[in-house]
Amino acid sequence: MLSLLLKEIRHNPLLWLLAFVPVVFAAEKLAPDAHTLLFVVSVLAIVPLAALLSHATESVAAKTGDAVGGLLNATLGNLTELVIALTALRAGQYMLVKASIAGAIVTNTLFMLGASFLLGGLKHRVQEYSRAGARFQAALLFLATIALLVPSTIAQADRAPGAVTQTLSLGLAVLLIVAYGLGMLFSLKTHREFFGSAEHAEGGESGEAPWPMSLALVTLAGVTVLVALVSEVFVESVQKAAEAFGMTPAFVGFIVVALVGGAAEMASAFSGARKNRLDLSVGIALGSAAQIALFVAPVLVLLSYVLGPTPMSLQFWPGAVVMMLVATLTAALVTNGGRSAWFVGVLLLMVYLIFALTLYLLPPQVS
Amino acid sequence: MLSLLLKEIRHNPLLWLLAFVPVVFAAEKLAPDAHTLLFVVSVLAIVPLAALLSHATESVAAKTGDAVGGLLNATLGNLTELVIALTALRAGQYMLVKASIAGAIVTNTLFMLGASFLLGGLKHRVQEYSRAGARFQAALLFLATIALLVPSTIAQADRAPGAVTQTLSLGLAVLLIVAYGLGMLFSLKTHREFFGSAEHAEGGESGEAPWPMSLALVTLAGVTVLVALVSEVFVESVQKAAEAFGMTPAFVGFIVVALVGGAAEMASAFSGARKNRLDLSVGIALGSAAQIALFVAPVLVLLSYVLGPTPMSLQFWPGAVVMMLVATLTAALVTNGGRSAWFVGVLLLMVYLIFALTLYLLPPQVS
Amino acid sequence: MLSLLLKEIRHNPLLWLLAFVPVVFAAEKLAPDAHTLLFVVSVLAIVPLAALLSHATESVAAKTGDAVGGLLNATLGNLTELVIALTALRAGQYMLVKASIAGAIVTNTLFMLGASFLLGGLKHRVQEYSRAGARFQAALLFLATIALLVPSTIAQADRAPGAVTQTLSLGLAVLLIVAYGLGMLFSLKTHREFFGSAEHAEGGESGEAPWPMSLALVTLAGVTVLVALVSEVFVESVQKAAEAFGMTPAFVGFIVVALVGGAAEMASAFSGARKNRLDLSVGIALGSAAQIALFVAPVLVLLSYVLGPTPMSLQFWPGAVVMMLVATLTAALVTNGGRSAWFVGVLLLMVYLIFALTLYLLPPQVS
Repeated sequence: MLSLLLKEIRHNPLLWLLAFVPVVFAAEKLAPDAHTLLFVVSVLAIVPLAALLSHATESVAAKTGDAVGGLLNATLGNLTELVIALTALRAGQYMLVKASIAGAIVTNTLFMLGASFLLGGLKHRVQEYSRAGARFQAALLFLATIALLVPSTIAQADRAPGAVTQTLSLGLAVLLIVAYGLGMLFSLKTHREFFGSAEHAEGGESGEAPWPMSLALVTLAGVTVLVALVSEVFVESVQKAAEAFGMTPAFVGFIVVALVGGAAEMASAFSGARKNRLDLSVGIALGSAAQIALFVAPVLVLLSYVLGPTPMSLQFWPGAVVMMLVATLTAALVTNGGRSAWFVGVLLLMVYLIFALTLYLLPPQVS
Repeated sequence: MLSLLLKEIRHNPLLWLLAFVPVVFAAEKLAPDAHTLLFVVSVLAIVPLAALLSHATESVAAKTGDAVGGLLNATLGNLTELVIALTALRAGQYMLVKASIAGAIVTNTLFMLGASFLLGGLKHRVQEYSRAGARFQAALLFLATIALLVPSTIAQADRAPGAVTQTLSLGLAVLLIVAYGLGMLFSLKTHREFFGSAEHAEGGESGEAPWPMSLALVTLAGVTVLVALVSEVFVESVQKAAEAFGMTPAFVGFIVVALVGGAAEMASAFSGARKNRLDLSVGIALGSAAQIALFVAPVLVLLSYVLGPTPMSLQFWPGAVVMMLVATLTAALVTNGGRSAWFVGVLLLMVYLIFALTLYLLPPQVS
Repeated sequence: MLSLLLKEIRHNPLLWLLAFVPVVFAAEKLAPDAHTLLFVVSVLAIVPLAALLSHATESVAAKTGDAVGGLLNATLGNLTELVIALTALRAGQYMLVKASIAGAIVTNTLFMLGASFLLGGLKHRVQEYSRAGARFQAALLFLATIALLVPSTIAQADRAPGAVTQTLSLGLAVLLIVAYGLGMLFSLKTHREFFGSAEHAEGGESGEAPWPMSLALVTLAGVTVLVALVSEVFVESVQKAAEAFGMTPAFVGFIVVALVGGAAEMASAFSGARKNRLDLSVGIALGSAAQIALFVAPVLVLLSYVLGPTPMSLQFWPGAVVMMLVATLTAALVTNGGRSAWFVGVLLLMVYLIFALTLYLLPPQVS
């Protein structure tokens, strides 16, 4: 069993970064105040752990059959992001939690999708993909963005007391999870055949044979614990390190955390695009964004009642709402046609660059 | 003639509620301060009157030939909403008038359309409908929402005096009515054949034979008077009853009045969806919303100069504008494809639930 | 050579207005304070100069081959707007510069496109056109509108100092020019065949034989100088004349300057629509709007560092951003189908009328 894991590690250069996991714990013991160093090594350690987690989830899913497997993929697909956000939640860093949620949505819909279109388009003149899957995920994302828009708009009007925003956030979180559940029922059960191709591709694409159940489950459990431990170092060091790099906290949460958390998925999406399997890339990018918006975000709100120092609301700062809205709308318009060429990728990346530039230049207090 | 009316009443269980019409007047005499009771019985009385009004309008339209009939349907189709709003207008309750306009647009595009898709989708796997009609109505709605957006945005900027907002509202009201008139010319006359199927379906769908002209005209006149009288009780009692139920005035105007006023149309739209005639459902839902936005709302602005204590503007509170904008955009995106399954209905209903929850939780002063 | 120019002038009634060019200079000498007179004659002089400039650019483009010619058309196509804006820039009238940029985008996407659809639709029942070109230009426009939205949103939040807005504007200007350049590469070089029909039509449509190179170059240089000289009179007189006509400065910059600067292009677009060549009309309208948003506007920001009294930002007033956003979204939705009838034109013109009415009624300080 261990030999299988070692073979996987030799096979995949990304996993060599696993060497940084012990480095993180050693560095934390030896130099607990070297925030920049801790930040860099924890980032380098999270990337391969996320890749392992993703492979373990897929292996369990492949073994448990279609319906249960689909459900597993749909709930554990963003386990890394969830664990990082939970660590920040327990530390009471709600601004970081929210920035990483909004950032993951924007990064998946603009950067991951745009880079997939660009990389695929540089190799293939025109690429086609299934519209049904893209439309479904875009519709779910649009719904979530509306739900996130409401508490922010109301809080901005400044006439509603905080208690109303909190009750509203709780209600919206429940509505979002229900919508996500019904969406799973629709795409995995009642109207499965409309989404068949994309789902199927995702399963068969990973290139490696699925692990045996026991290895997958042990990896899932063990790596989750490791991600949680490394995340703690990451969350503690990120703010101080950001200052050292001259970045605003908004930029770090929005861009850096989202890129780190999504690195493993991006590798799959880009590889799919190069192989002219855009169905796969679009499915990963929009599916992951929808999952964060409709599952991870509301679950964090619910868990904040148990784990956090105070309940967390769904109220984002106005700029984040505008960015999520624009990102969702752009992705919906772009994927509506089911065709792509390299310039479509450029357009999405340009919108992402505009947002990144804005966040980078914003003075800290705006975040 | 009366026997025909009685046969209709026996045939349609909804019309049994007509028994509540005399109850309203009796209750008002006997217990003028029992606001909650008056509210409930007036709601129960308006629903069957609206159904009668709708049937009478269709009968007159069927007898007067295509062009005049289409025009009649287009102007009198929302007579109930118009009469209720006129009663509130005369009482100077402009907030209730505006909430009921915005609420009717949002309820028709999200709830009526969403429930039609869901009810139809639970029976039929995938349903198709004509895109031409849906696109036309969605375009009209989009135009109206932009017109309603302008005075609210300007007033919010807080630099424009009220007189400017009022002049602007008057100008916009005239533009909207002109656009609505040209839209009728387009869909009923110059490019009639593009919309043929939906219009035709609507005429033949009601299932019952049209009444003779005399009965229809008498019913139209008599029931309009009854609706006006019951509306007065309804408008007087609604605010106090809302407080008793713990609802905000915004919620009552937006959700309750809109559901009461549109009950008859909803019955037709849902029945069409179950019979796999989505053209009919989409036509009723979007057509009714467009009519309220481009005809009822501007007519109320114009009539406020004659009937109201002061002229009424088209300035809505920001939240209402956002909701109308989101509802219109959602309906446009959803109906763009011309296909539907049950989950599309769930998505629309979810957006409606998000809005209803927000309005329910909002503190009163925000409305 | 001169005889060719004279033949062109006799051929084209618009060019008879050239007689007003000397009138402008005479009037400025004789009655430098007659602002209304100077405004009217400078408007009448700019229109034929713009037409000459446009014909000269096309002639040079036709002679220099496809790629270089396309690039020339893409950079000099809005030379008149650029020269007028540069004159206002040098005079430090940044409000007029920005109003004319926003106005040109809105006027091209709503008025020019809408009037083309209406004029074409009154003659031809249903008109079809290529969706590829329209979608490409609409996507570029959408990108530009997002870029323009960002600094305005941030400045409105009022927490960012002016220096941040200025740095951000500079960065966005560079991003927009890069996006425009890559867009040219895409549409003129790597994926040329998707846009072939529209481009081709534009070249062959002008109806007149292209001029010889020498005449075209001399005209290009000479007329540019004349436009610059007349623009100076125009910019100096426009504010005072606006007051005399009872118009707000916002209305003048947004509506009057945009209509004057685009008169020559409108003549071509309308003529194309009447001849059932909507590809041409849509290409001119959306292409011109995209060029102003992605090329003229950022070039003005960059040049303001050299020519203006202080650097100019990309921060527009909120109303202008909303109008550009609505105009872009409307054009994208409307051109998505690739078909048109007269009522589509009415819808676009109605949105334009709503904006014009609002700007006309707005009190001056809002601009």
